[in-house]
Amino acid sequence: MSAEQRLRDLGFELPAPPASAGAYVPSVRTGNLLVLAGTLPMRDGKVAYAGKVGKDLDVATAAEGARLCALNALANAKAALGSLDAIKRVVMVQGFVNGVDGFSDSPKVLNGCSEFLVAVLGEAGKHARAAVSVNGLPLNAAVEVQVTVEVAG
Amino acid sequence: MSAEQRLRDLGFELPAPPASAGAYVPSVRTGNLLVLAGTLPMRDGKVAYAGKVGKDLDVATAAEGARLCALNALANAKAALGSLDAIKRVVMVQGFVNGVDGFSDSPKVLNGCSEFLVAVLGEAGKHARAAVSVNGLPLNAAVEVQVTVEVAG
Amino acid sequence: MSAEQRLRDLGFELPAPPASAGAYVPSVRTGNLLVLAGTLPMRDGKVAYAGKVGKDLDVATAAEGARLCALNALANAKAALGSLDAIKRVVMVQGFVNGVDGFSDSPKVLNGCSEFLVAVLGEAGKHARAAVSVNGLPLNAAVEVQVTVEVAG
Repeated sequence: MSAEQRLRDLGFELPAPPASAGAYVPSVRTGNLLVLAGTLPMRDGKVAYAGKVGKDLDVATAAEGARLCALNALANAKAALGSLDAIKRVVMVQGFVNGVDGFSDSPKVLNGCSEFLVAVLGEAGKHARAAVSVNGLPLNAAVEVQVTVEVAG
Repeated sequence: MSAEQRLRDLGFELPAPPASAGAYVPSVRTGNLLVLAGTLPMRDGKVAYAGKVGKDLDVATAAEGARLCALNALANAKAALGSLDAIKRVVMVQGFVNGVDGFSDSPKVLNGCSEFLVAVLGEAGKHARAAVSVNGLPLNAAVEVQVTVEVAG
Repeated sequence: MSAEQRLRDLGFELPAPPASAGAYVPSVRTGNLLVLAGTLPMRDGKVAYAGKVGKDLDVATAAEGARLCALNALANAKAALGSLDAIKRVVMVQGFVNGVDGFSDSPKVLNGCSEFLVAVLGEAGKHARAAVSVNGLPLNAAVEVQVTVEVAG
């Protein structure tokens, strides 16, 4: 089954790639790596999960936001590669949570992204990760992920 | 026209590579990638843009700082490669803004770096990017960028 | 002398690889790169250096924590590669300090990691680095490092 079919079976549609939030491009290919720009929890051109995690929204809600970040990252990957099936492996996820000072649950938030990538891509979705809490994100998003994937050579 | 000529036409001179702020090296080459260390807005050995963005300095001033970070990254690239023309492509910029809590304009700050890289390097300067606000940077710098480039094989 | 022998001569033992803090894997190999997940200052399954640097612990203590992060990263590298001697070069260290607002000494904290990598691996341990202070880390750890290494081809 294709990754996009699995995505649909999970109840998701691949959105149009998100608009760039600045003077950069959504992805760059170098060798067999596709380095994706950071993605936010955008839906229909708006931040769907905004604010400080631990104050404005809870961990479970922010984890949904992280899943939406991953969906937008996949949209960028598809735009670059033509098909999600060209992803040989998700290499790395760098996750940033817009947390209150001292926020220590960034892994639980980022699991929303990580579990989704594995659900859609299977073994190819398993990745290394680093998660931190930061004091602010673009457009006041609750979470941002930056994904790097390996492309079939 | 060479990248260094374009740099001069824009009114800039490539500085001496910045001194390391710690026990690391300014860049490492691996395959066709040159991974540059994080660079700060240093000029003549001092941080020229310091403090919290949103309190001590505004977004436009911090964007000038991001441009200076990029200039220092280019100085490190030239030291490693001999010429900026050996840069085949800027792959990724990771941008960190020393923002007040809740700072959401990191993309506008980082555009100072991103637009400069494109002005100097043209198409080769277009990169993926992730931008966040953090609660502190080395030497109280207002902004830090970490740049990875692909080198002509 | 092997890297593990140098490690022992320095008074350290390579621990068991740390448990994953979430839905990710400890490392991913892509080409000649081994991308390691972020590691925390874990010892015997617990965070040994917790809290805010600049309030709960000082820079020198946090630097010990950064060294422990590096030790855990090496444990993950050994688990993936079979031997630390398969590390051709440490490419990059991304360092995150759980600092008080405005914390500007992240380089001194991260030197605990960087100097250790060079002590253990020699020239192969010299890496590029970016260090920042963030407002929160997983499990309230004081420091986190994310290491990428090049593997002998």
